[in-house]
Amino acid sequence: MAYITIPEETQLPGIRGLMAFSPQTARPLNALAELLLRHPDNTLSQGERELIATYTSYLNDCLFCQSVHGSAAQCYLDDDGTIISQVKRDLWTAPISDKMKALLLIAQAVQKGGKYVTDVQIQLAHESGASDREIHDTVLIAAAFCMFNRYVDGLGTWAPTAPEAYKDRGARIRDEGYANFDPMAYIQAQ
Amino acid sequence: MAYITIPEETQLPGIRGLMAFSPQTARPLNALAELLLRHPDNTLSQGERELIATYTSYLNDCLFCQSVHGSAAQCYLDDDGTIISQVKRDLWTAPISDKMKALLLIAQAVQKGGKYVTDVQIQLAHESGASDREIHDTVLIAAAFCMFNRYVDGLGTWAPTAPEAYKDRGARIRDEGYANFDPMAYIQAQ
Repeated sequence: MAYITIPEETQLPGIRGLMAFSPQTARPLNALAELLLRHPDNTLSQGERELIATYTSYLNDCLFCQSVHGSAAQCYLDDDGTIISQVKRDLWTAPISDKMKALLLIAQAVQKGGKYVTDVQIQLAHESGASDREIHDTVLIAAAFCMFNRYVDGLGTWAPTAPEAYKDRGARIRDEGYANFDPMAYIQAQ
Repeated sequence: MAYITIPEETQLPGIRGLMAFSPQTARPLNALAELLLRHPDNTLSQGERELIATYTSYLNDCLFCQSVHGSAAQCYLDDDGTIISQVKRDLWTAPISDKMKALLLIAQAVQKGGKYVTDVQIQLAHESGASDREIHDTVLIAAAFCMFNRYVDGLGTWAPTAPEAYKDRGARIRDEGYANFDPMAYIQAQ
């Protein structure tokens, strides 16, 4: 049970219940997620952006966010789980580009705190072909998930522990996006 | 100098430069700040909400955010700096309500990570008269500033070090808000 009384809590895990509790703040939060993770005018693919979100949520130990966004990343990257598991275990040996390794290293620093990002990490990202825009978006995605993760866990929301519960989440995010999420319509559609 | 090339950087410190670099993400970020810190339909005063933002930014050691929002908190609370200094030094002896002490204790936990919030802290907040809504907003304000602080420092933006540079910020936030901030109009108005 969450620390606050959430409507239809058992049917609305993680941030979904908080969005039902507070629809007004849900709007800019969903608009931010839509823009950062799905906007088509971006040289990072949707899969790469979801991978940054998943990795940050994993480092923050947020079960709900790493499961939902992990499912989205798997869906976009056509991954059976191998890529994500390997990124979590050791990103240097994961089957991803050098640019993504450098960007995830920046996300790793941001997760600890803004001042953990260093010149050397930025230089490595630039040398591996990352643009200023890509570095900007990586920092903001990682920072945004430091918010989302704290929102979800700081209010003690529940999340399913079985991985199967998240299996279809990725395709649903791909097809429906974040911007129009409506918690009550979501319940009715179950 | 920031890690990325920011237009008119010398005139746009902290998040202002990032908002000039990326106006599209500035919109939901400003909408979120406006809603959390200034929306009139809230039982926490604007000064109390700015105090939560200032305290979180202080814990994250973000000079720009703690200075700007500290100036706003001082302005709303009609504080010469005594309240904020004392909250930073030892919130238990600060001249604020027991409810605010309990809420700032929750913000302190959120700053470390969502899972640092405990039943005991929530019970203390409830016992001191905090509502579910106030607890929700405290967690989300603290979480949001864990994002803003990381965004500002993770991209290495500059910020004035002299306290006088922030003196008029509070009144400007009170009078103009966050939602309509336009970096280029801001430069022209200097």
